[in-house]
Amino acid sequence: MALEAATLLTWTGTAVRIALVVFVTGILVKIGDSLVERVFARGPRMGGPHFDESRGRTLASLLKSALRYVATTVAALTVLQLLGIDIRALLGGVAIVGLAVGFGAQSLVKDVITGFFIIYERQYDVGDYITAAGLSGVVLEVGLRTTKLRDWSGDIHTIPNGLIDKTTNSSAWASRALVKIPIAHDEDVRRAMAIIQEVCDEIRKENPNIIDGPRPLGIGDMDTYGVTITVWARTKPLEQFALERELRLRIKEALDREGVKRPYLPIRMKNDP
Amino acid sequence: MALEAATLLTWTGTAVRIALVVFVTGILVKIGDSLVERVFARGPRMGGPHFDESRGRTLASLLKSALRYVATTVAALTVLQLLGIDIRALLGGVAIVGLAVGFGAQSLVKDVITGFFIIYERQYDVGDYITAAGLSGVVLEVGLRTTKLRDWSGDIHTIPNGLIDKTTNSSAWASRALVKIPIAHDEDVRRAMAIIQEVCDEIRKENPNIIDGPRPLGIGDMDTYGVTITVWARTKPLEQFALERELRLRIKEALDREGVKRPYLPIRMKNDP
Amino acid sequence: MALEAATLLTWTGTAVRIALVVFVTGILVKIGDSLVERVFARGPRMGGPHFDESRGRTLASLLKSALRYVATTVAALTVLQLLGIDIRALLGGVAIVGLAVGFGAQSLVKDVITGFFIIYERQYDVGDYITAAGLSGVVLEVGLRTTKLRDWSGDIHTIPNGLIDKTTNSSAWASRALVKIPIAHDEDVRRAMAIIQEVCDEIRKENPNIIDGPRPLGIGDMDTYGVTITVWARTKPLEQFALERELRLRIKEALDREGVKRPYLPIRMKNDP
Amino acid sequence: MALEAATLLTWTGTAVRIALVVFVTGILVKIGDSLVERVFARGPRMGGPHFDESRGRTLASLLKSALRYVATTVAALTVLQLLGIDIRALLGGVAIVGLAVGFGAQSLVKDVITGFFIIYERQYDVGDYITAAGLSGVVLEVGLRTTKLRDWSGDIHTIPNGLIDKTTNSSAWASRALVKIPIAHDEDVRRAMAIIQEVCDEIRKENPNIIDGPRPLGIGDMDTYGVTITVWARTKPLEQFALERELRLRIKEALDREGVKRPYLPIRMKNDP
Amino acid sequence: MALEAATLLTWTGTAVRIALVVFVTGILVKIGDSLVERVFARGPRMGGPHFDESRGRTLASLLKSALRYVATTVAALTVLQLLGIDIRALLGGVAIVGLAVGFGAQSLVKDVITGFFIIYERQYDVGDYITAAGLSGVVLEVGLRTTKLRDWSGDIHTIPNGLIDKTTNSSAWASRALVKIPIAHDEDVRRAMAIIQEVCDEIRKENPNIIDGPRPLGIGDMDTYGVTITVWARTKPLEQFALERELRLRIKEALDREGVKRPYLPIRMKNDP
Amino acid sequence: MALEAATLLTWTGTAVRIALVVFVTGILVKIGDSLVERVFARGPRMGGPHFDESRGRTLASLLKSALRYVATTVAALTVLQLLGIDIRALLGGVAIVGLAVGFGAQSLVKDVITGFFIIYERQYDVGDYITAAGLSGVVLEVGLRTTKLRDWSGDIHTIPNGLIDKTTNSSAWASRALVKIPIAHDEDVRRAMAIIQEVCDEIRKENPNIIDGPRPLGIGDMDTYGVTITVWARTKPLEQFALERELRLRIKEALDREGVKRPYLPIRMKNDP
Amino acid sequence: MALEAATLLTWTGTAVRIALVVFVTGILVKIGDSLVERVFARGPRMGGPHFDESRGRTLASLLKSALRYVATTVAALTVLQLLGIDIRALLGGVAIVGLAVGFGAQSLVKDVITGFFIIYERQYDVGDYITAAGLSGVVLEVGLRTTKLRDWSGDIHTIPNGLIDKTTNSSAWASRALVKIPIAHDEDVRRAMAIIQEVCDEIRKENPNIIDGPRPLGIGDMDTYGVTITVWARTKPLEQFALERELRLRIKEALDREGVKRPYLPIRMKNDP
Repeated sequence: MALEAATLLTWTGTAVRIALVVFVTGILVKIGDSLVERVFARGPRMGGPHFDESRGRTLASLLKSALRYVATTVAALTVLQLLGIDIRALLGGVAIVGLAVGFGAQSLVKDVITGFFIIYERQYDVGDYITAAGLSGVVLEVGLRTTKLRDWSGDIHTIPNGLIDKTTNSSAWASRALVKIPIAHDEDVRRAMAIIQEVCDEIRKENPNIIDGPRPLGIGDMDTYGVTITVWARTKPLEQFALERELRLRIKEALDREGVKRPYLPIRMKNDP
Repeated sequence: MALEAATLLTWTGTAVRIALVVFVTGILVKIGDSLVERVFARGPRMGGPHFDESRGRTLASLLKSALRYVATTVAALTVLQLLGIDIRALLGGVAIVGLAVGFGAQSLVKDVITGFFIIYERQYDVGDYITAAGLSGVVLEVGLRTTKLRDWSGDIHTIPNGLIDKTTNSSAWASRALVKIPIAHDEDVRRAMAIIQEVCDEIRKENPNIIDGPRPLGIGDMDTYGVTITVWARTKPLEQFALERELRLRIKEALDREGVKRPYLPIRMKNDP
Repeated sequence: MALEAATLLTWTGTAVRIALVVFVTGILVKIGDSLVERVFARGPRMGGPHFDESRGRTLASLLKSALRYVATTVAALTVLQLLGIDIRALLGGVAIVGLAVGFGAQSLVKDVITGFFIIYERQYDVGDYITAAGLSGVVLEVGLRTTKLRDWSGDIHTIPNGLIDKTTNSSAWASRALVKIPIAHDEDVRRAMAIIQEVCDEIRKENPNIIDGPRPLGIGDMDTYGVTITVWARTKPLEQFALERELRLRIKEALDREGVKRPYLPIRMKNDP
Repeated sequence: MALEAATLLTWTGTAVRIALVVFVTGILVKIGDSLVERVFARGPRMGGPHFDESRGRTLASLLKSALRYVATTVAALTVLQLLGIDIRALLGGVAIVGLAVGFGAQSLVKDVITGFFIIYERQYDVGDYITAAGLSGVVLEVGLRTTKLRDWSGDIHTIPNGLIDKTTNSSAWASRALVKIPIAHDEDVRRAMAIIQEVCDEIRKENPNIIDGPRPLGIGDMDTYGVTITVWARTKPLEQFALERELRLRIKEALDREGVKRPYLPIRMKNDP
Repeated sequence: MALEAATLLTWTGTAVRIALVVFVTGILVKIGDSLVERVFARGPRMGGPHFDESRGRTLASLLKSALRYVATTVAALTVLQLLGIDIRALLGGVAIVGLAVGFGAQSLVKDVITGFFIIYERQYDVGDYITAAGLSGVVLEVGLRTTKLRDWSGDIHTIPNGLIDKTTNSSAWASRALVKIPIAHDEDVRRAMAIIQEVCDEIRKENPNIIDGPRPLGIGDMDTYGVTITVWARTKPLEQFALERELRLRIKEALDREGVKRPYLPIRMKNDP
Repeated sequence: MALEAATLLTWTGTAVRIALVVFVTGILVKIGDSLVERVFARGPRMGGPHFDESRGRTLASLLKSALRYVATTVAALTVLQLLGIDIRALLGGVAIVGLAVGFGAQSLVKDVITGFFIIYERQYDVGDYITAAGLSGVVLEVGLRTTKLRDWSGDIHTIPNGLIDKTTNSSAWASRALVKIPIAHDEDVRRAMAIIQEVCDEIRKENPNIIDGPRPLGIGDMDTYGVTITVWARTKPLEQFALERELRLRIKEALDREGVKRPYLPIRMKNDP
Repeated sequence: MALEAATLLTWTGTAVRIALVVFVTGILVKIGDSLVERVFARGPRMGGPHFDESRGRTLASLLKSALRYVATTVAALTVLQLLGIDIRALLGGVAIVGLAVGFGAQSLVKDVITGFFIIYERQYDVGDYITAAGLSGVVLEVGLRTTKLRDWSGDIHTIPNGLIDKTTNSSAWASRALVKIPIAHDEDVRRAMAIIQEVCDEIRKENPNIIDGPRPLGIGDMDTYGVTITVWARTKPLEQFALERELRLRIKEALDREGVKRPYLPIRMKNDP
């Protein structure tokens, strides 16, 4: 009888415990769902127009169903155990498969987390010219898993976010134009710089993309062939290439007009004795 | 008697548990099968014509039989344990072999998972010219384990997908033609650019592969020998090489016709005193 | 009866234990909170004006709520266990998710810890010109997770602190100006150095950014074309570029004025027999 | 008596369990053997003539005896444990030695698995010219552990398969011949290309190894010395070197015959004022 | 009664055990304290003037309080366990947080241990010119966590000690001056070496920083332009740069005085047939 | 009495178990010994004269004593445990020390295993000229732990076998001689090749080390200075250097004799207008 | 009573076990001590004069005291456990600290083990000129933790032995002198080689450091400027630099005396049409 009672008590306790497990599982699923919701609801609000909303929704539903799969499996195993079946062997089998898949999923998780930080910290927006993971280009798309760039040559680069650590944004502030004008050693450098300054002043008036300069800085280099005058300017982002070409063309013409000579190779010939 | 009863009870419980184990195993196998089916059924639907369907079916059947092997083994071990045999030693032996094989299979798993994402995100299709894992070429085949490329020189590259992280697709948008025309320092650059512009306009009319340009951008470089005029164009993917050769030939002829001089090395000779 | 009493005793003990667990959890949460407070209160006191205080407060509150989540979960699991439910299976499920997230969070933790040391040891301040993780630039922002630099070309670099190991601060002490003046082999080097010294003395008087020098050090290099005189100076941080350009311009003018010849290529011609 | 009975019962149970262990071990050994057989029997059937059959048989017998060693050891340990001896200490000692050996065996396992995939996917055959693990050469032997190559210089490379990831097969499709013909700036490029085209047409008729071309593509490069005409052809694998030499020789002769001038260095001499 | 007695006995045993735990904890804390004291007291005694004593004291007190925190926590957990509460869940929670922090602290521990060896083995002192972790400079500070260098250009490098493996100390013994003097092919090398030897002897007498040499070693190199005579000397650490410049200047003057010719480019001109 | 009997029974069982442990340990030691013997006995039989036999014997005895140490320790610990002493704490202490040593011994184990494969697969013999781990040289010694090479400059390289992965054996088959003969652009290449062929035929008759060729292959390269004729031959291993020098000398003499001109720099001079 | 007796028995058993633990600990300490003694006693016997004996003794005593610390701690923990206190929590705390320190100590252990092999295998001695871990120099000191080198420039390199894998010893056998003598294209190479041979024979007689040669090997290279004759010799270790300089000087003088011409740049000038 005592045995029966004890057995009854045990069975009752087991039932209560199973109920508790089911209840806790249910609550955890709810909490997880709301967490997922919050993260993906917050995303678009701050991420601006380039957060791919439909993809976000897809991922949220994927995460939620994954959560439910995991929770149900764990609850089922716990119930089995409460019924006295040692689930370690089962778990062992699951663990091996899980590890194999988990290993592969590692980089996926890293991609998503890094992607989240890139969007959260607004390191770059669609349309910026950036350098990341050794590739440069205009940002076409910032996704949670990958970033897409298009470089000057027209190639499309797809970079998993997990590969991105330090990023360089060339559209965030301003760009620098730098032109090197070679002239002969026997020219008057101050006169050449005055001519260049005049050209620079003209260009400054015409070109609204210039923020500072252009200005000849002085002699940047001296070698056997001649000296090099460096001309510097600060422009709006990515406008430096056009300005550099304009500077080269107009400075060349001004120097030609004024007869400033270009570098040459000086040679001293000796006759064989 | 009490002992007998207890023993009986224990044996009955054991039998029930064994039945449960067999049942659960059966269900898990079914779920696994349907999961495998769904993944490989979904694959071809979106993966387009280049998803190797027969290989997919092979892999699905392989995965399913692997699943059945694992499930049966785990169930057998659980039954053994319920019969009171400690299977840890057995498991230990299996684990060592399993680890050794698992170590080798790691990269296989990574290949398949990365391959899945490449196909799912359509990073490239058969026939695209891409760069991945440091190799460039036309995509011959996108498999779950490997990607095959053929480069310009005719070599066939086989790349395990696990080696592929960032990919560059040169066929996705457009290409850029860039030609550098060297002329002498003492030539009129504006006149040379006008001649080049004329040639460019002619070519534009004849060549249907050009999207934008060609157009002389200005002076790209200045050195001791002369100046370099950069000519730029945007073409359909991979049409830039033919256009560049055409531009070089026709611009050279036009400049020759107009007598524009080419760069030379300027020397100043001094007699030995 | 004995059974009942024992059961009662057991239940009483269980109740006492649950109370203890709740109490200990409460105390640990309090201690954790005050620790977090202390770390983030100490931060701004020593970190100077560039410690982003509002971000610190955000992080402190984040940490505190994380602490509360963890503590509550652990306490709940312990209570479940005291009630006789084996929580290992539950923990297993949690652990798998936790590991996946933890893996991704690793680099975040590393970023914050390295960031803490950078601020604590004042390795660089906002406005310094530094080199870190292979990138150079003026420091725009020192955060707990990232450092932002702006380089000479105007690009903005965002570097996760975890990537930063050795750092180079170019604004901490002084800079060095180094100019190489090439002259012909058949010139009197001592006379050239005297002329250069004169120019250096003049510049020294005019330029308040010079700390030591400028001074011609002697012959830095000798080759087929001529010899190179090295001129050295010590300036305030980052003033070396302007001084180098000034030195090059004025030394060139002085040497031209005094007729010191520049390097040339010596050739000996032999007539074909 | 009760004790005796219980003891008897225990001993009987132990005996039954030992029998079971022995039986299961026997079955597992059989299954393992047949698996090994199937893998190594399937190998030669598809691997073609270059699968080293005797080595395969050696390896199969090695694997089978290894399997038997492992199974016997595990069974012995389980029996010991059923007799009540805690084998964990024994296992601990074995594990340490096993780990040390296993560490070393890791790369062996990786070699064999990668080797299996290379043969299974027929990435290359004996006689192909391939590039793998940074080395190029003609494949001499494809083993399960190593691949042997012989390069042009006659060196024999032995590469463990585990080092091989991406492979390049130059014998799988075709090769490309590419010859660069330099001519002077003041030559008529169209006329030079016509002469070259004539030579190419002749060669095409004579040489059966040519698949496509040869054909002058146009101006590949323009510099101070002259222009470069690129000639392209597609040949059977590895026939490109002979064709390139033939093209160079016959195009040179044709150009000499027609008096097309070669590049030169243009110089402008100025007298010292 | 028996139950009560047993319970009493159990409680008594528990009380004794708790007392033992408290006692052992106290002793371990004492031992730990004295160990910390000994390490940091031994430090300054041998470390010389550059061991940052106040920082050492700070660290010692930090370590001691860390020790107390750990010991108290462990003791508290043991007491909880003796009272029958399973602390594994609690420990699990602590472990997760601890691992996250520990991961970050890893490099800190490595820094301190490597720093300890650098100081203990006196690999370099403040004021030495060293190369470590790819950076060179004069040592400003040797701390337990970082080493600070200042290089020739005035930059301050902060290197975590954990990055330092092999170190190069240029101030520990002596330096080498090495000057290459180019002369023409048609000069008498023995005569040139005699002239150089004379200059070297003079300089030796004047310069107290020279340990050995200077001495012309012979022909170091022969090319189309001429031959190079290598001059070698051994000086006090870091005095080689000044000596090299002095050698170049005075040898050049001596060779000019004696009319030894410098290298030139020999050319043979052929008239076009 | 029952208690006594049970105790007796327990003690008897314990004694039997201890006996079993001692017995099993003895057998395992014997098996281990014979395994070691077989491996090291098989080694010299197939390894040829360069297997360092005395070292092998030393290692065998070392391995055997190591085995005995491990077995005795494990048996002792098992006996302790059978006597009821929990040896986990002891094992913990041992494990920490063991891990530290084991970590260091890892690379030793890897060296020996790789060494075994190098000898077993006869990748190279003493006297071969090989390249391994980035170093080239003649093999002096193939040991189980290291391989010793002597390179052309006389340096002795000691390479731990664990560093060796892919190996290149230059003595296994044959070597290739490759000589590039530069001639002027305006020479008749077919005539030059005929002259070279004649020289090659003579050399072939005289030199017994030649396997195939020598033979002029055609024009290997064309540039501004002239064209290059490539001469190819196949020789016995390492005989290529002597043959290349002989080819260069005799071809040069033949070309000089026949008046074939060497390359020159073509220049076109323009007078300054 | 039965209870008391059982308790007594239990306590007696516990006492016996404690005694056993103390005894075993004592024996293990003795064995460890003698092992340490043997290793460090064997060291100097074979290590020659450069094994730093006093440091060895220091290390031996350090190791012995470390052993005692570990053994005492483990024994104390076992006794605690026998008294019924669960030491796992204590061990947990210790393990965390231990792991942190152990992590740092890893490289120390690796240094010592590699150092042991370097000394045991006599890979280099004090005074040898070696290359290891990318640094070259004369060995100053071979310690158990570090190797110290002094390179030609006088820098002292301290290399932790753990960084050393493959080592190159330049003092173990002999060195090679290699001199390249450039001569003009239109010179008789056989005559030049005869002159060089004569000089070599003279030098051979005078210089006792020569082992083999010197000898002109033939034409090492042919380019536009001229041909290069390679002269080869084998000398005692590190004597090659002096011999090379002597060879260059005396061969140059002999060639000048005999009027052998040096290389020149051949030019063909064309007048502008």
